[in-house]
Amino acid sequence: MADHILNDISHRRFNLLRGSWILVSPHRNKRPWQGLQEKPSKTTLPDYDPECYLCPSNTRANGSKNPKFDNTFVFVNDYSAVKEEQQEYNPEQKDGSLATRLLRAEAVTGKCYVICFSPSHHLTLADMTPAEIIPIIETWTNLYTLHLSPKSPLAEAAAALKIPQLNQDDIAKPNAQYRYMQIFENKGTTMGCSNPHPHGQIWTTTSFPEEPATEFHQLSKYREEQGGAHLLVDYAKLESKEKERTVFENGTFWAGVPYWAVWPFEVMIVSRQHKRALVDFNDKERGDLAECIAEITRRYDNLFETQFPYSMGMHQAPLDGSEEEVECSHFHIHFYPPLLRSATVRKFQVGYEMLGEPQRDITPEQAAERLRACGGELYRRKLD
Amino acid sequence: MADHILNDISHRRFNLLRGSWILVSPHRNKRPWQGLQEKPSKTTLPDYDPECYLCPSNTRANGSKNPKFDNTFVFVNDYSAVKEEQQEYNPEQKDGSLATRLLRAEAVTGKCYVICFSPSHHLTLADMTPAEIIPIIETWTNLYTLHLSPKSPLAEAAAALKIPQLNQDDIAKPNAQYRYMQIFENKGTTMGCSNPHPHGQIWTTTSFPEEPATEFHQLSKYREEQGGAHLLVDYAKLESKEKERTVFENGTFWAGVPYWAVWPFEVMIVSRQHKRALVDFNDKERGDLAECIAEITRRYDNLFETQFPYSMGMHQAPLDGSEEEVECSHFHIHFYPPLLRSATVRKFQVGYEMLGEPQRDITPEQAAERLRACGGELYRRKLD
Ligand SMILES: O=P(O)(O)O[C@H]1O[C@H](CO)[C@@H](O)[C@H](O)[C@H]1O
Ligand SMILES: O=P(O)(O)O[C@H]1O[C@H](CO)[C@@H](O)[C@H](O)[C@H]1O
Repeated sequence: MADHILNDISHRRFNLLRGSWILVSPHRNKRPWQGLQEKPSKTTLPDYDPECYLCPSNTRANGSKNPKFDNTFVFVNDYSAVKEEQQEYNPEQKDGSLATRLLRAEAVTGKCYVICFSPSHHLTLADMTPAEIIPIIETWTNLYTLHLSPKSPLAEAAAALKIPQLNQDDIAKPNAQYRYMQIFENKGTTMGCSNPHPHGQIWTTTSFPEEPATEFHQLSKYREEQGGAHLLVDYAKLESKEKERTVFENGTFWAGVPYWAVWPFEVMIVSRQHKRALVDFNDKERGDLAECIAEITRRYDNLFETQFPYSMGMHQAPLDGSEEEVECSHFHIHFYPPLLRSATVRKFQVGYEMLGEPQRDITPEQAAERLRACGGELYRRKLD
Repeated sequence: MADHILNDISHRRFNLLRGSWILVSPHRNKRPWQGLQEKPSKTTLPDYDPECYLCPSNTRANGSKNPKFDNTFVFVNDYSAVKEEQQEYNPEQKDGSLATRLLRAEAVTGKCYVICFSPSHHLTLADMTPAEIIPIIETWTNLYTLHLSPKSPLAEAAAALKIPQLNQDDIAKPNAQYRYMQIFENKGTTMGCSNPHPHGQIWTTTSFPEEPATEFHQLSKYREEQGGAHLLVDYAKLESKEKERTVFENGTFWAGVPYWAVWPFEVMIVSRQHKRALVDFNDKERGDLAECIAEITRRYDNLFETQFPYSMGMHQAPLDGSEEEVECSHFHIHFYPPLLRSATVRKFQVGYEMLGEPQRDITPEQAAERLRACGGELYRRKLD
């Protein structure tokens, strides 16, 4: 590739999925760092913590008691950002005044869940085998199905699913048809996570949030311009051939550092075939997804021999979307980890990045090479 | 205003300047916080630190010695993200292949500066009087002028400026005509700042970065739709009348928490009249800008009685822009501070925010009320 010069010069790359640019300054990684250092996270947590509101049989802030669960456990977030019920809001009618032109707001309702990944207080995704991750994927799929519009083009696929059902009294059918479900995990105190018991979140809203809406716009444009081709199918195919940004792949997914990655060790897991949402996967494919999640999170921890912080989450079809929106959607997972040089030195996306544009130091190709090289057993297990 | 219900319900607000939405969840501020706590920054720094590479007469990483300066001091960043000279990059020709369709990059050159705000190692903007801030604004204006395209519609205004000139041997005229100049400051270790000596940065590039380009698009659209009216002129007028988001104002500027603010105590300083760039201001207006910067930064420090961290920076006309780009540009400053509840508890824009959309807890109106209430003398001075 004539592009190897990009390892040495400052340049911008275009994020086709968002339609935006990022600045890459490879030489800049060499500057000394005298700024803030993160505390490497404690790696020795007990299997059960009597003070943890996520451990089995413990009591939560609102007084309810967690069941004794075996795999995952889902409950409605006690401090939800959106709620099913609230006062009605009717914005003032557009009257051509400055106020109605410049101050635009709309109500948002919805439902927020927490999902404990397992009963164990210390078992992170990186510690789990693919087989142990499968129940988490099944739970995500069940929640998605529970909220899916019966009119969705995906309803048929959802009805045909054969996976263990959610069996929890507190997960009632939602009161209303919501528009989008955002499934994500914040891991590590650096990423605003306030409880180390491995867990994720699910925020379901009447709104179609900015990020997936921005991506939808780009996916739809590509499909239109390329006679029905899917951007991420083409992208996974290309990356799987080029190899230099690949971290791991199997029959169903490509996982690697995107060409346009912002965070130093950002990773995207992309389905090779066109899959609109979680409900489109079969047993084999869920197994392959579990394998990718295990491979990526284990490499993350191995890279700096630490509990690697990140935010991760998936984008897929809206719960209630037009035919076009559902058809353009393509299942993928983003991992956004902040660390740059070691367990204690992170990348800050601050002044220039907030006011100008995102900026990265090492190239995506260098990041992928390092992640590829640290597969194998989890460093913590080797230390045992 | 019928909109007071927005203090109690979850809703989205539309950022007209970026064309994007943010989620507001006012009730959520009540949740307990057991996560990461910031270290409140040391408030007692010496006036001179022999180890500091920004103090007068000290030696920098590259071996050069700082002069004994009186006001500001500007030098080329020893670890610049972009450089004036680098190998040429000629991307492969578009050949319809997947690679040229999906992997798009372009070279970026430019020049990065550091600006020390004063010789004193501990004098932050919040400690300075407006009169002490004026030389900083003059230096920004001089640097902007030095890089301005002679063909710019702003060239005339720049030539007519009567302010003390930059008089430093190491600030040579740039080698090339660059497109945009991003002036900003990262303050505090939380914002990736690695040296407490008060300083800002200036990154000048061949590219028109994402954020100002996105704003330009919106400003231009508004002007077109509203028969030549300027979005931010209309906005400052409305906010100055509504008052509830105002923190401080004077004859030239409105300063307050934007209706669509993302960060808890985000502030925007907007020129009331249409001003395209720094070179459009006269003495009186530079004095008014200095007053606004002093009022905002002092209130920030007073709010939690700490060195309040933030990233701040200005948006204005490109150095080399079309008539339309220059005419649509409107000078304003953004302050993006991370703290939420105290000197130690910040807001994290993480999982949902990165994957879904930005989310805030207190409303902009509540934030403005608190900032209005903490004017007056700097808390540190009262303690003396
Ligand atoms: O240039 P500095 O102060 O060393 O670095 C800081 O500001 C830069 C510009 O916002 C960022 O790219 C860095 O991540 C941050 O640590
Ligand atoms: O919900 P948590 O884990 O308490 O909170 C964390 O995740 C949320 C969703 O990304 C963010 O809004 C918070 O800022 C963060 O601290």
